[in-house]
Amino acid sequence: MKVLPRFLRACRSEPVDRVPVWLMRQAGRYLPEYRKLRTIHPFLEMCKTPALAVEVTLQPVERFGMDAAILFSDILLLLESMGAELHFDEQRGPRVRCEGIREGAVHGLRVPDMDRQLRFVLEAVKQLREALPEDVALIGFSGAPFTLATYLIEGGTSRTFFDTKTFLYRNPASFHGLMGKLSEAVEVYLLAQIEAGAQAIQLFDTWAGILSPDDYREFVLPYMQRILGGLPADRAPTIHFSLGASTLLDEMKSLGAGVLGLDWRIDLGVARGRLGPSKPVQGNLDPLALFQPRETLRATVSTMLRKGASMPGYIFNLGHGIHPQTPLESVYDLVEGVHSFPVAGTAEGLSV
Amino acid sequence: MKVLPRFLRACRSEPVDRVPVWLMRQAGRYLPEYRKLRTIHPFLEMCKTPALAVEVTLQPVERFGMDAAILFSDILLLLESMGAELHFDEQRGPRVRCEGIREGAVHGLRVPDMDRQLRFVLEAVKQLREALPEDVALIGFSGAPFTLATYLIEGGTSRTFFDTKTFLYRNPASFHGLMGKLSEAVEVYLLAQIEAGAQAIQLFDTWAGILSPDDYREFVLPYMQRILGGLPADRAPTIHFSLGASTLLDEMKSLGAGVLGLDWRIDLGVARGRLGPSKPVQGNLDPLALFQPRETLRATVSTMLRKGASMPGYIFNLGHGIHPQTPLESVYDLVEGVHSFPVAGTAEGLSV
Repeated sequence: MKVLPRFLRACRSEPVDRVPVWLMRQAGRYLPEYRKLRTIHPFLEMCKTPALAVEVTLQPVERFGMDAAILFSDILLLLESMGAELHFDEQRGPRVRCEGIREGAVHGLRVPDMDRQLRFVLEAVKQLREALPEDVALIGFSGAPFTLATYLIEGGTSRTFFDTKTFLYRNPASFHGLMGKLSEAVEVYLLAQIEAGAQAIQLFDTWAGILSPDDYREFVLPYMQRILGGLPADRAPTIHFSLGASTLLDEMKSLGAGVLGLDWRIDLGVARGRLGPSKPVQGNLDPLALFQPRETLRATVSTMLRKGASMPGYIFNLGHGIHPQTPLESVYDLVEGVHSFPVAGTAEGLSV
Repeated sequence: MKVLPRFLRACRSEPVDRVPVWLMRQAGRYLPEYRKLRTIHPFLEMCKTPALAVEVTLQPVERFGMDAAILFSDILLLLESMGAELHFDEQRGPRVRCEGIREGAVHGLRVPDMDRQLRFVLEAVKQLREALPEDVALIGFSGAPFTLATYLIEGGTSRTFFDTKTFLYRNPASFHGLMGKLSEAVEVYLLAQIEAGAQAIQLFDTWAGILSPDDYREFVLPYMQRILGGLPADRAPTIHFSLGASTLLDEMKSLGAGVLGLDWRIDLGVARGRLGPSKPVQGNLDPLALFQPRETLRATVSTMLRKGASMPGYIFNLGHGIHPQTPLESVYDLVEGVHSFPVAGTAEGLSV
């Protein structure tokens, strides 16, 4: 009988033999084998060439024994397929251009044809499912509509999100129109990834934490509920991640996401206590804690495991993407620390 | 018999005739009279010339009828007086230099001599107390040690606070040494402001919200408790403000600050419920909500007042500093909305 990968078991609050672990941005610049490929291929070429995307996705799994692989891609590719112009500036980061968007002109954006415009993503997902060992789960993902909207409106990242907020405050109807269009695209995109073989889905609503709870409930929550309600959770569990959004924990509970990804600003024990045993949780080590000396890091990881794995449904991860300068030894130590942590009273569940 | 300004009454959870209001950065670039002065005088000159600092501090009080004035100054002036180099770059914002600080060399920093090095601050405070009407309270302030430490270590503002966090993770003992030195200076500085006539004190720990609760408890909390414990709360109530720190609400409760300033990421009703009637609260409108159309803004302010003023001890404010592009009409509307809000059952307390 086939054993479900422990990552997927944890997503369903089922017993596991060890705590599953993966790291956001685990395929990335802190890896020498990644940097080597990047000297030859620009970032977007790597995303759009299935063989390269597959190779990079597998790198951290092969090196560290991660329990899940997340498709190497970028949340902004969906915007490009919808009609926005996209390029990556080495200095300034990603730049997005979409004519008329600040005036509320949503008609320039179209729900993409997956097979024509995002075929490379679906192809990479298919190849990855063949390449990955059976016990390593494949996670597909998308940016969530609000976070995608911020990139469209700001043209990149922002400190204050001035343009996004003045847009939604001054033209709430246009903002809702934009959210509706983006939600359609996100749902189609995620369904296509599941169809191609993604076994779980992570929705990155990285910037939703800039909103007050009232604004979140008005401008974000209904769209997330609609998207999450339209996905086949029985086939592919969903994970919701947002940065600095631990104050929105009650709202997050009602999104309909299977698993909640937390950043490091909330105590994992407190979060599990507030969310209860029926809500699996993923997180939440500060990525910069990987710069701690070895012994301190071990102690930090242990403390986190005692809090996180106090009930079933826990996936170890960072509270945000891993930093490009992270020492490799810390990642080895972290994965070893997680995998050697004794999970109480669950051994009998393993051969199910 | 003298009536205590309503701002100070609210700081003590005493009954008020109307809800007091002031805005963080209320003396600043959104005011034409401020911009006019700035065309003649550089920012630091304005801070260091008592007559100018006084004039600018009074501007929003005179224009809008604010219930409190906050001394026009900058949190980084304390660092300069301690030995750091400071300049304001029009493009990049404040730049701080302090030789050897990243190597943990705290000895270059000294607790300043108030009378010699920060006389201009104390002089402005004195003049302000004479210039202000009796019913308008004067707030002194300082950056809190952690936030000051981030500027010293990063050399300015930061998105990820990489240098600060890797410093504290790798050299916790040096970081504690730095916090100790900064705490001494902050306490002396605040005592001198109270001595000169400040009627309340706000401690800005703007960046403390970047820390996990465990790290906050280890690296920040004890220093805040020490400073706040050393101030004469009966003479000058204390307000603690931090950005994105609503997840640290339980920790904030134990700081010893009289009033908690909240950013917009927590619902004011939820916060008051969790903190209880004995903890006065200040906040927390998203500064960018001042870009809402008039009718929407009025409704937003009403909703906030119903939540905030549901129990005594509420001061209306923004959740962060006012944005330089804020329309003046919005500020007029806001202040009028707050002052016309009926405060239930407190009229008998007014002639105390």
